[in-house]
Amino acid sequence: MTDAPEKKSPVKARLPRGLADRGPAELAATNRMMQAIRETYELYGFEAVETPFIEYTEALGKFLPDQDRPNEGVFSFQDDDEQWLSLRYDLTAPLARYVAEHYDRLPKPYRSYRSGFVFRNEKPGPGRFRQFMQFDADTVGSASVAADAEICMMASDTLEKLGIARGDYVIKVNNRKVLDGVLEAAGLEGEGRAAQKLIVLRAIDKLDRLGSDGVRMLLGTGRKDESGDFTKGADLATSAIERIIAFTSARGETNAATLAKLGDAVGASERGREGVQELADMSALFDAAGYGDGRVTIDPAVVRGLEYYTGPVYEAELTFAVKDEHGRPVRFGSVGGGGRYDGLVARFRGEPVPATGFSVGVSRLLAALQAIKSPLVSGASMRGPVIVLVMDKGEVARYQGFVQRLRAAGIAAELYLGSAGMNAQLKYADRRNSPCAVIQGSNEREKGEVGIRDLVLGAELASSTKDRADYLELRQRAQFAVSEDKMVEAVREVLGR
Amino acid sequence: MTDAPEKKSPVKARLPRGLADRGPAELAATNRMMQAIRETYELYGFEAVETPFIEYTEALGKFLPDQDRPNEGVFSFQDDDEQWLSLRYDLTAPLARYVAEHYDRLPKPYRSYRSGFVFRNEKPGPGRFRQFMQFDADTVGSASVAADAEICMMASDTLEKLGIARGDYVIKVNNRKVLDGVLEAAGLEGEGRAAQKLIVLRAIDKLDRLGSDGVRMLLGTGRKDESGDFTKGADLATSAIERIIAFTSARGETNAATLAKLGDAVGASERGREGVQELADMSALFDAAGYGDGRVTIDPAVVRGLEYYTGPVYEAELTFAVKDEHGRPVRFGSVGGGGRYDGLVARFRGEPVPATGFSVGVSRLLAALQAIKSPLVSGASMRGPVIVLVMDKGEVARYQGFVQRLRAAGIAAELYLGSAGMNAQLKYADRRNSPCAVIQGSNEREKGEVGIRDLVLGAELASSTKDRADYLELRQRAQFAVSEDKMVEAVREVLGR
Repeated sequence: MTDAPEKKSPVKARLPRGLADRGPAELAATNRMMQAIRETYELYGFEAVETPFIEYTEALGKFLPDQDRPNEGVFSFQDDDEQWLSLRYDLTAPLARYVAEHYDRLPKPYRSYRSGFVFRNEKPGPGRFRQFMQFDADTVGSASVAADAEICMMASDTLEKLGIARGDYVIKVNNRKVLDGVLEAAGLEGEGRAAQKLIVLRAIDKLDRLGSDGVRMLLGTGRKDESGDFTKGADLATSAIERIIAFTSARGETNAATLAKLGDAVGASERGREGVQELADMSALFDAAGYGDGRVTIDPAVVRGLEYYTGPVYEAELTFAVKDEHGRPVRFGSVGGGGRYDGLVARFRGEPVPATGFSVGVSRLLAALQAIKSPLVSGASMRGPVIVLVMDKGEVARYQGFVQRLRAAGIAAELYLGSAGMNAQLKYADRRNSPCAVIQGSNEREKGEVGIRDLVLGAELASSTKDRADYLELRQRAQFAVSEDKMVEAVREVLGR
Repeated sequence: MTDAPEKKSPVKARLPRGLADRGPAELAATNRMMQAIRETYELYGFEAVETPFIEYTEALGKFLPDQDRPNEGVFSFQDDDEQWLSLRYDLTAPLARYVAEHYDRLPKPYRSYRSGFVFRNEKPGPGRFRQFMQFDADTVGSASVAADAEICMMASDTLEKLGIARGDYVIKVNNRKVLDGVLEAAGLEGEGRAAQKLIVLRAIDKLDRLGSDGVRMLLGTGRKDESGDFTKGADLATSAIERIIAFTSARGETNAATLAKLGDAVGASERGREGVQELADMSALFDAAGYGDGRVTIDPAVVRGLEYYTGPVYEAELTFAVKDEHGRPVRFGSVGGGGRYDGLVARFRGEPVPATGFSVGVSRLLAALQAIKSPLVSGASMRGPVIVLVMDKGEVARYQGFVQRLRAAGIAAELYLGSAGMNAQLKYADRRNSPCAVIQGSNEREKGEVGIRDLVLGAELASSTKDRADYLELRQRAQFAVSEDKMVEAVREVLGR
């Protein structure tokens, strides 16, 4: 191995497309964000669980949004015994497997949260990765819409805990049964309509991006996008299309007004009326807990693109504007969503198990927090370690002792381990964002002293003029000598500046 | 989807072998352990980095221990463009790719730490998983053995930070160049010896498990294990075997004594003498920093099973005994190790880049911390949320309001979301490890009161006798009524008991 590289041409150092490395600042920001979410979820009584990245392909099933082609969207490979395995593509399908596998020993209702990477074998694009992080919370085993309502309120609390101000976000709630009722009232229910229904709800899901005219095309014959790609439509009659568009724009001034309009839209459909009643029950819970003040709102335009939802659906939307790459203001949009999926656990148990859950898109939320400069994720730039310079290679053990004393005092510190000279060592300290360097050449050593250099102050001085009245005084503060036994105190003093 | 499950036979809920789910207690313990490691590494000036789980197969290369068969050991699959991708099998190969890809913008020496899951497509066994977690630290770009010495000292600090007492562990250090020297002195160097050398070092690596007689067999014609599997040996002459066995047992009373023996073992081999000098330099650094007190020790029996090491190798070993499944005391053994690998980054750059790194086996270390009942990971069992019972389904909004007030006071709380009666609700509270239940039936409601039940005290009373003098007083403390506006204080009082 060690002799080989010289013989053959080097391997190219690169990542497959749609995958990314993450550096210390992004990792620290993500960790702080995740911790805040975790604390909120635990306050709501949710407990942690983690499932592995690999599952039987069959156990995961095929529930990807925008994923109509078989054998695509998922990274799969065969095990030694020829069974197919897949990398998880979300955190909901593995939860369904987990709950079904451990059904009897789990408390029910079972509230859990999970976070981690999921994988999509899709065409990557800007901001669209093949490995990305989700943070989910689910309640399994409760048929009550109080479970759905609670998750909506938890989503609201989570965004505020992350530093997003009230009024800068809204949790939008709808119910799939209401959409079913509208379709039924439009004469679109019954056997063999499942594929058409999926096209309809994915069309509505694009309302934000395409506007109602774009959605009309997708509900009708179809739509050609800017790139020329044609998406086949649901092929509905104009009257049905207008009924659906009217439904999506049924949001009133108040939840009560919206509910009244929805009651009209579903007509005599029993399923539709059930959906409206569930929304009314949730609305009462939001009001009782104080979230009816605009934090959580019924909005018929929200349907979610996933096929498996069976009742309430909800979405967390950021409403403040950020500038896009052309400097135009755009709304940040959705950072998470979810809904009720009573059929997923049933795949394993053969009997319906009620469940509802919410998923946060971690990277998208992080981008939002960075955009509003949330102190949680932007804060001060990270301070590097104190660097002890190596001025004399024969004295490395002595320098190592300095480093040791600093660490013992809780100060992050390191010995310069390269082979470069003093200037390059100071440049290295700069690149590490080091606040302070400890320097001992033979002069200082003979006097039993160490030099302390304040790199922050030093950088300020370097960029200022020598005409400053306090220049000399500042220069003395930026670099000074102390006796060896005063080193830790002196460094601490510099760090405290 | 929602109608489908009734029609076909259910999918089996199970995980592929060698994969496991993790519950809240294990996750919390792991997180606390990882945080302690992270803090120690940052004190040493290492910064976080994270690479994705998927890399080009070619970029990862084949550097698995005990992995001689091609195309095995790694989970691989083809991308759309037919290029082969693999799940990372360790955190070193991706780091080499990362450093090579970002070489110019990284500070050098580059110190980084990384943690996360890695995957092995191997036969799973007890305690041997196909997905497991590692925690690595590496210094890239420093040829100085001060970099190796520092990582050994950091490993020592890390174990103590995790609650492992001084004397209960040892960091053992050796150098591959010394082994090369011994092989050279035994006439085993030169072209075409690479495969044989690999067999030799993997044989020595098994010294702990097989003893010197087992290693002798592996250095000779081969060895049959208890299951009857035969491992082919290195086929060395008896004199060479004895020379190697003598080398592995060259540890003396002090590092100085060991170094003297090693000097003899390598004879005139220049590479061997270089290795002994490096060990002497490291030993001086350990002594100067105070780690020569037995925390870090030169031990020629440590060689590490990986082919790519080129200089110092080191291993963190726990020396205390735990009981095995038959009640016999066994040493816990290795929880991590590493070494210098100057060739790995060279695969990409065509020129050698010095590097050294250490990897912790997270699950193994966690098991060790649990065995010694380290407060970091065992602590008190986790307390569940306060449960607000649903005594009257028409009052859910009111109960939700109670929950809300508790959460606003920072108390983890939840509304019971199932459909069962009071006894089942209290059983649910037990299963959640809930400390306290809030109960309001119509009687209490009419009086504007809530019932508070101390579930911990209640459980104690249930298992004690009624003859206790203080029984009635305790029963009153275990269940009492307060006015609604005193609910939060009353719950807090119970939690504080």
